[in-house]
Amino acid sequence: MSHKVAILGASGYTGAELVRLISTHPDMEIAALTGDRKAGMGMGEVFPFLRHLDLPPLCRIEEVDFATIDLAFCALPHATSQNVIKALPSDLKVIDLSADFRLRDGAVYRKWYGKEHDAPELQAVAVYGLTEFYRDEIRAARLVAGTGCNAATGQYALRPLISAGVIDLDEIIINLITGVSGAGRSLKENLLHAELSEGTNAYAIGGTHRHLAEFDQEFSLLAGRKVEVQFTPHLAPMNRGILGNVYVQGDGRQVYDTLAAAYAGEPFIQMLPFGAAPSTHDVRGSNYVHVGVASDRRPGRAQVFVALDNLTKGSSGQALQNANLMLGIEETTGLRLAPLFP
Amino acid sequence: MSHKVAILGASGYTGAELVRLISTHPDMEIAALTGDRKAGMGMGEVFPFLRHLDLPPLCRIEEVDFATIDLAFCALPHATSQNVIKALPSDLKVIDLSADFRLRDGAVYRKWYGKEHDAPELQAVAVYGLTEFYRDEIRAARLVAGTGCNAATGQYALRPLISAGVIDLDEIIINLITGVSGAGRSLKENLLHAELSEGTNAYAIGGTHRHLAEFDQEFSLLAGRKVEVQFTPHLAPMNRGILGNVYVQGDGRQVYDTLAAAYAGEPFIQMLPFGAAPSTHDVRGSNYVHVGVASDRRPGRAQVFVALDNLTKGSSGQALQNANLMLGIEETTGLRLAPLFP
Amino acid sequence: MSHKVAILGASGYTGAELVRLISTHPDMEIAALTGDRKAGMGMGEVFPFLRHLDLPPLCRIEEVDFATIDLAFCALPHATSQNVIKALPSDLKVIDLSADFRLRDGAVYRKWYGKEHDAPELQAVAVYGLTEFYRDEIRAARLVAGTGCNAATGQYALRPLISAGVIDLDEIIINLITGVSGAGRSLKENLLHAELSEGTNAYAIGGTHRHLAEFDQEFSLLAGRKVEVQFTPHLAPMNRGILGNVYVQGDGRQVYDTLAAAYAGEPFIQMLPFGAAPSTHDVRGSNYVHVGVASDRRPGRAQVFVALDNLTKGSSGQALQNANLMLGIEETTGLRLAPLFP
Amino acid sequence: MSHKVAILGASGYTGAELVRLISTHPDMEIAALTGDRKAGMGMGEVFPFLRHLDLPPLCRIEEVDFATIDLAFCALPHATSQNVIKALPSDLKVIDLSADFRLRDGAVYRKWYGKEHDAPELQAVAVYGLTEFYRDEIRAARLVAGTGCNAATGQYALRPLISAGVIDLDEIIINLITGVSGAGRSLKENLLHAELSEGTNAYAIGGTHRHLAEFDQEFSLLAGRKVEVQFTPHLAPMNRGILGNVYVQGDGRQVYDTLAAAYAGEPFIQMLPFGAAPSTHDVRGSNYVHVGVASDRRPGRAQVFVALDNLTKGSSGQALQNANLMLGIEETTGLRLAPLFP
Repeated sequence: MSHKVAILGASGYTGAELVRLISTHPDMEIAALTGDRKAGMGMGEVFPFLRHLDLPPLCRIEEVDFATIDLAFCALPHATSQNVIKALPSDLKVIDLSADFRLRDGAVYRKWYGKEHDAPELQAVAVYGLTEFYRDEIRAARLVAGTGCNAATGQYALRPLISAGVIDLDEIIINLITGVSGAGRSLKENLLHAELSEGTNAYAIGGTHRHLAEFDQEFSLLAGRKVEVQFTPHLAPMNRGILGNVYVQGDGRQVYDTLAAAYAGEPFIQMLPFGAAPSTHDVRGSNYVHVGVASDRRPGRAQVFVALDNLTKGSSGQALQNANLMLGIEETTGLRLAPLFP
Repeated sequence: MSHKVAILGASGYTGAELVRLISTHPDMEIAALTGDRKAGMGMGEVFPFLRHLDLPPLCRIEEVDFATIDLAFCALPHATSQNVIKALPSDLKVIDLSADFRLRDGAVYRKWYGKEHDAPELQAVAVYGLTEFYRDEIRAARLVAGTGCNAATGQYALRPLISAGVIDLDEIIINLITGVSGAGRSLKENLLHAELSEGTNAYAIGGTHRHLAEFDQEFSLLAGRKVEVQFTPHLAPMNRGILGNVYVQGDGRQVYDTLAAAYAGEPFIQMLPFGAAPSTHDVRGSNYVHVGVASDRRPGRAQVFVALDNLTKGSSGQALQNANLMLGIEETTGLRLAPLFP
Repeated sequence: MSHKVAILGASGYTGAELVRLISTHPDMEIAALTGDRKAGMGMGEVFPFLRHLDLPPLCRIEEVDFATIDLAFCALPHATSQNVIKALPSDLKVIDLSADFRLRDGAVYRKWYGKEHDAPELQAVAVYGLTEFYRDEIRAARLVAGTGCNAATGQYALRPLISAGVIDLDEIIINLITGVSGAGRSLKENLLHAELSEGTNAYAIGGTHRHLAEFDQEFSLLAGRKVEVQFTPHLAPMNRGILGNVYVQGDGRQVYDTLAAAYAGEPFIQMLPFGAAPSTHDVRGSNYVHVGVASDRRPGRAQVFVALDNLTKGSSGQALQNANLMLGIEETTGLRLAPLFP
Repeated sequence: MSHKVAILGASGYTGAELVRLISTHPDMEIAALTGDRKAGMGMGEVFPFLRHLDLPPLCRIEEVDFATIDLAFCALPHATSQNVIKALPSDLKVIDLSADFRLRDGAVYRKWYGKEHDAPELQAVAVYGLTEFYRDEIRAARLVAGTGCNAATGQYALRPLISAGVIDLDEIIINLITGVSGAGRSLKENLLHAELSEGTNAYAIGGTHRHLAEFDQEFSLLAGRKVEVQFTPHLAPMNRGILGNVYVQGDGRQVYDTLAAAYAGEPFIQMLPFGAAPSTHDVRGSNYVHVGVASDRRPGRAQVFVALDNLTKGSSGQALQNANLMLGIEETTGLRLAPLFP
């Protein structure tokens, strides 16, 4: 049976990635695509790589007949989603890919996003969408909040370790290298090929990146105490991919074994052999996550490496995995595509 | 029903691309993978992007039980394939991805490849694998010769035009820009990132590229007279993709209409609107071909643009499409994957 | 003796490239930098790569005391330059890097740029800035019009051949691959790293690129008859560099000898051996031009390859070379910097 | 007065970079170039980007008349240099760019490089070539050992902090992102464009990178106690550049002020404003180093960022700066070239 889905905000990268993935999903059909500024255009005009598909044209949200829709993906910009979702039929299943419903606490939202939340009642019920750790809640949810792509990366490295109590909670450093599609289709000088290719830089330095709020919320909840990590992302000249290099204080073998046990049955998480480093090249365009662990030469220090594709497992692939759960479809359906290499 | 296939020479890019594509093919199963120098290793070691798959380890060709194999893909280097294929069971269906069986004439083979062919009897019966133009022959073939990736690109631009007699056969220029994976996994200084990125150059200039032999053979056959084109490939810093810009003398609109008519029912060939230029970005990782046509400001001159992915439609995707035909599977099975963008 | 120069419009790539080059020029001093939208900022803020230099801050054009300036480089956008230059002191030496003064004929300007020229009296006296071919006029000029970067590339391949009458004037095809900095610092989706890297496409197809106007003007003047070429640029994922592949009908050896003779004494033009193809990698960041020639397998057909850096020899380096001539400085001063490789 | 220099091992990237830099040095002349495997070839054949220069052809070391040479740069592979340098005239000034003379202790050398040193007597007298910290010793040295490029990066971040005692010596993490030219012109699969572009990975993880030996030696010497840092390099798809992100425990402002004071008079080291992050884009091709500092949100934790070009300041530019000192030339001569951007 085919489930009908809508993608709100289909003219950005995460929207297009959803279309790409759903285009070969056997049990899902795209029934509506919205894009306010590009309403009336075909997806093949906005994204020529999708021109072979038979898709509904982009329309305005008001034009969608939600009565015929089983689930809506909301791929709108941060701070826009909350009002749009508030106005949707209250029984419609929704997956939001923005940051709007990731934080459960209104005050924390205000602190990091600089505004009052417009739908606090939804904020309270939204389920955090990190599939492997919220699977049951997601299955039963009406509204799921997709995680930040950096936030997902750091959590894959750390959640089992925090739960198991095998690392020092005060000495965690999350060092990330991220691809540029994480910044979306925004027109900024530093995202131009001429300025981005052939170089790298850190950004949002000094503990200012908003995904810290997700780390704080989730790690503190897991640990039952306040946990604050140090987190620095770097921008590298690659379109897709995040490489997390997470510095922890703990025993390397114990770290490895804890992660291996936690991810033993997970269809998308691959543990590398101990001492091996993953590469973002090897997960590009896929929903797979590669995890590696190494001990430092000094006992009691280790590193966890996580490679994933920010647009797939870090965003739209995660959303589709969650949609499968919410719609009663087998969780991995449509998501087994192999990475693209080279 | 699942068909069992073997991939001979699976440790190169075209072999790995076959594995990627077949991994989500519903009716095909990889029963054997060979790689002489890497025999004994797992594919996930040779290509970590495939580590999530449950695959047979690489073995030596002699170790394969061909009695259980329905079709073998031969992804070995040029000049190696011919002897390997000669030694295979004579009723085994084979698709060769090398250049060994593209040329039907022994003398022409000798001229371009500098050696006598070791299996002239097979050379005579091999079917040229450009699916859209040899569909019936491929369906009935025992041995299919995959085309050169550049050769495919040029032929998609030109075959219908030559057949229809709408261009001057003596004034054809095929200008190509190709991605580096076309050179395979060869260790050469000019293929290093440090030497290839951020620049471009022509190569095999002056009418020396071996794919000219394919153009000569196919175009002369179509035209019923000798046709010689001018052909220059350029190497650009991209891993996948070929952009053909084919200069012809003829009426632009007639050129467009001829191509549009020829490709009207083709599942993988997309005609762009008249005057639009395709981009290799829009076909990356897919089996789709985008075709555009523009008239020059001077009447009687036009350009045909063709974008395809050299590893997919130009090589392994083409091979899989042909395998579907040879095995009686619906032609597009496993090949509808959308391109990867960005 | 140090000559004082101003750079008007210093916040774009050509302005910054002028600063880069002049920073090690022994006889030139940057006395003023303008940038209307960024007035008040330091160049090191706008372009951190220049932060080691002691430069005047960006100011508004009105704030420059042109009485103290020996020569002004005008690196403003097309159609903006003409009014700015008209308002400058009439005895100030000026080099314009925009398209505004490249075309001598008002009607031709109107046709290609869609507006009436605002300074036709200057249009008539401006000298076309292709140094090697207008050296004496440039030395004596008050206003020099920098050439288009694509236009320079095509002319280096063709001017000596047209002058010598060794090629068919009706069968010239200029095929170019250009780096993205040629598009300037403009914020457009297709110039984003995510959309530009790892792929290529033709643009301004069908005889619509404005540099055709320069080819028409210059080649017709040289030939003493109307010459119209076919010209298609392609965008490749590289920041600097243009590779011209110019298809001509003529004898390859004669073509080579004609070019070699024409460029024998030129300090910046390097002839490669016959049959060798230049690469943009080998001229990056420099004022050098590499020229190669190959014969096709069919007699009477040849190709000329030209590689140069669009921002240096194609724009700011050319401008500095011309400034040297206009100020009586040895022509190559400050321009002998070797290319950057890798 | 022009000093005559030889470059031994000129066919690699550091050798070619030396030629690039020296080509516009007013007081230095390249009198000999050696390259055993390419002896007899011109540098313009080996590196076409140098074809405009009038250089001696590559020869074998035995063919060089060292009596006419004032200083030799030795750009040979690790473990090769020591025997070559041992055989040179004992009064010849030498700068070695390999790792052979960086470590003063024979046992430490043996541990990290797995062999006995062949010239321990030279090992004892070689001066470590980090110019800003060994200026006087370098001026007087006969043999200078160029530092590792990663080692230089980490030391620019840390030396003043260790000397001043403002950070916790047991909690130092050096996280680096490096460009691929640091690996030299080696033919390895992971350095191919097809495998390196568009992705990133850590390497030499777990405290195994040989530059750790330099950190250990230098930091322990400075601190007067054993100091062991954690160090992980990542490979990013860029040809030049290293970005160091060094995590320290100390007061951010004090860290900044300490570095600013230490580098106040340094011609090549640029302190960014507090809280700003440098980018490798802004130092490409130059001898400049950009240094930034940020405090974490948690008091007592800070980060130091260092951007430099591995081939210039990290290797050949450093060598030339040292050569200037050794030959009595003004230290910055020939090294003021601005970075190349974009």
